[in-house]
Amino acid sequence: MENIFADRRERLRRAMRARGLDVLLVSNAANRFYLSGFELHDPQRNESAGRLVITVDGRDWLATDSRYVDAAACLWETERVFQYGSDAAGDTARLLKRCGSRVGLEADDVSFAFARALGTAGGLFLEAADGLVEELRLVKGLEEQAALAQSFALNHRLLAWVEGEVQPGKSEAEISWAIERFFRENGADELAFAVIAATGKNAALPHAIPGADRIVEHNPVLVDVGCRVQNYCSDQTRTFWAGDEYGPLYSRFARTFALVRDAQEAALETMCPGMTGRDVYALARAVFEKAGEEKAFIHGLGHGVGLETHEAPSLSPRSERALAPGMVVTVEPGLYYPDWGGVRLEYTVLVEEDGVRIL
Amino acid sequence: MENIFADRRERLRRAMRARGLDVLLVSNAANRFYLSGFELHDPQRNESAGRLVITVDGRDWLATDSRYVDAAACLWETERVFQYGSDAAGDTARLLKRCGSRVGLEADDVSFAFARALGTAGGLFLEAADGLVEELRLVKGLEEQAALAQSFALNHRLLAWVEGEVQPGKSEAEISWAIERFFRENGADELAFAVIAATGKNAALPHAIPGADRIVEHNPVLVDVGCRVQNYCSDQTRTFWAGDEYGPLYSRFARTFALVRDAQEAALETMCPGMTGRDVYALARAVFEKAGEEKAFIHGLGHGVGLETHEAPSLSPRSERALAPGMVVTVEPGLYYPDWGGVRLEYTVLVEEDGVRIL
Repeated sequence: MENIFADRRERLRRAMRARGLDVLLVSNAANRFYLSGFELHDPQRNESAGRLVITVDGRDWLATDSRYVDAAACLWETERVFQYGSDAAGDTARLLKRCGSRVGLEADDVSFAFARALGTAGGLFLEAADGLVEELRLVKGLEEQAALAQSFALNHRLLAWVEGEVQPGKSEAEISWAIERFFRENGADELAFAVIAATGKNAALPHAIPGADRIVEHNPVLVDVGCRVQNYCSDQTRTFWAGDEYGPLYSRFARTFALVRDAQEAALETMCPGMTGRDVYALARAVFEKAGEEKAFIHGLGHGVGLETHEAPSLSPRSERALAPGMVVTVEPGLYYPDWGGVRLEYTVLVEEDGVRIL
Repeated sequence: MENIFADRRERLRRAMRARGLDVLLVSNAANRFYLSGFELHDPQRNESAGRLVITVDGRDWLATDSRYVDAAACLWETERVFQYGSDAAGDTARLLKRCGSRVGLEADDVSFAFARALGTAGGLFLEAADGLVEELRLVKGLEEQAALAQSFALNHRLLAWVEGEVQPGKSEAEISWAIERFFRENGADELAFAVIAATGKNAALPHAIPGADRIVEHNPVLVDVGCRVQNYCSDQTRTFWAGDEYGPLYSRFARTFALVRDAQEAALETMCPGMTGRDVYALARAVFEKAGEEKAFIHGLGHGVGLETHEAPSLSPRSERALAPGMVVTVEPGLYYPDWGGVRLEYTVLVEEDGVRIL
């Protein structure tokens, strides 16, 4: 593992040289873990477990506070662990000054207050340098693919099991908790994101929080779930029909389901290295347009999955990035109708040389 | 409830006038919820569920994206819900410009990138104005005290139950998951923070993640737990002894336990409105100093608890703030010895006119 992290840092150094940076202060938790194996999560909002100071000359630092020094020493050269005190920004600025003058920050992952305090310390030329590590994370290495395979294997087991659980009378909150229990008791470290279990009209809400609403027969039930196994996230969605397959709504549901499945298949069958995110999005959208239902497709087609549930690349009208072997993306078309609910179907795929493989 | 939120915003306006602000952009999720009832959590790191634009003239806005417009309309005047697009910072800057020129930001809760984008939009005089809402949150209203009482009632039930669970042979991870299940299946919305269940030497680590280590007879087991009920957090710690009360370590444990309990009682019996956080800290520390064990007391004595597990005021050597009725703080002295473990005992108390009451 040591070599994996060192290799990643070497690749980052090449990108830093191309940008003309002496130093990059890595604050994003997933980026920090990707480059060092140190702490995938920060302890809480506005509180960092530590930051990496990556230098072009290869003399990197892991900067953290007293709580984490033991953990840091397990995976980082002890003499290059820098312990800051209660003035984390001031102490970090002094460390950065020793490492070089042109310093990149992850501007999305540093608070305005922290950046200002770094600047006030003086003597540093600070610039926003977001996305350098995220760029490396786009293509998953073999060890990452192996972890993703484990995470998705458990996700598939969950979805096979949950089909029997989505019965009329159960509340969304009950199903949501049963799903969390299944994941946790079958090997997941945690949820990758809060479970979505939405029934009836709630299935039309892109931001449904599972509540007291109970499943009523002859209604859709949308289940969007992810777990984290060996640090890597999984993400899949299915939409079930509660009760017998008849009733006034069923034919509308079945038609919608078939259309969403067709859109998903259109993307899965054709997407391949070289196509942009926009191209892939258009494949699915074309199916909805042909049926005159494209207005009910209110979100992008997919996003990358890895150490984070939502990462690059995206499959959306604005995504100019081309797919490449080793990228992992969701393919999740959906149609939503506020008067009765909706259908979303989501697989996550690994991009291979000649197409994609469902994880 | 509507009036509670409106009252809080009126109190905030008074603080804004005293600071000379026209507008405050509220980005901190707990502050946002405290002032509006809208979304206690952001959906994920670096992703806001929305921001409040509080103006001195009382014409406030709730700014959010398309996912949350329905939820916003349930609790906020529809014509004062502002929907931003993919350029959240640019759109928000334009809204702020219509509201006034002197704009306060929560600098700890806004990313450097977001603040820069607001500034780039031009025409705004931006300044850091952290802590204004946190100041209001210090003293808990009766409705908040009622919610805290519910959360602590469940926490006490958990601790009574968990005493039977900390048996030799069980792993920290097993106990941690059993605790989470107990909370969730008995009315908690979620954990307030990740469970700490640490046995043996792990009990000496301020940052112990429950792992595969199993409880061995004649060792301490430290359990630090919190749940969220009706949006409010609870936080308590107990330290148990595994197995029979004998063996070489037991007398050392019992002596340490008695000392920590004495320090806790010294604080609980004396603390009252008007005393500073530093004064209260000194009460507990004096007990350890008298016994010559103060070097093993490596953290502050306590912190506020409310919508967040860690909030103001703190009970530490640096805290000059005086206690006042309605404040809620933990009292959690601890002594830690890397060679065998440690003891921490934590109650949370409500400050009353003539002293404190344990929640």
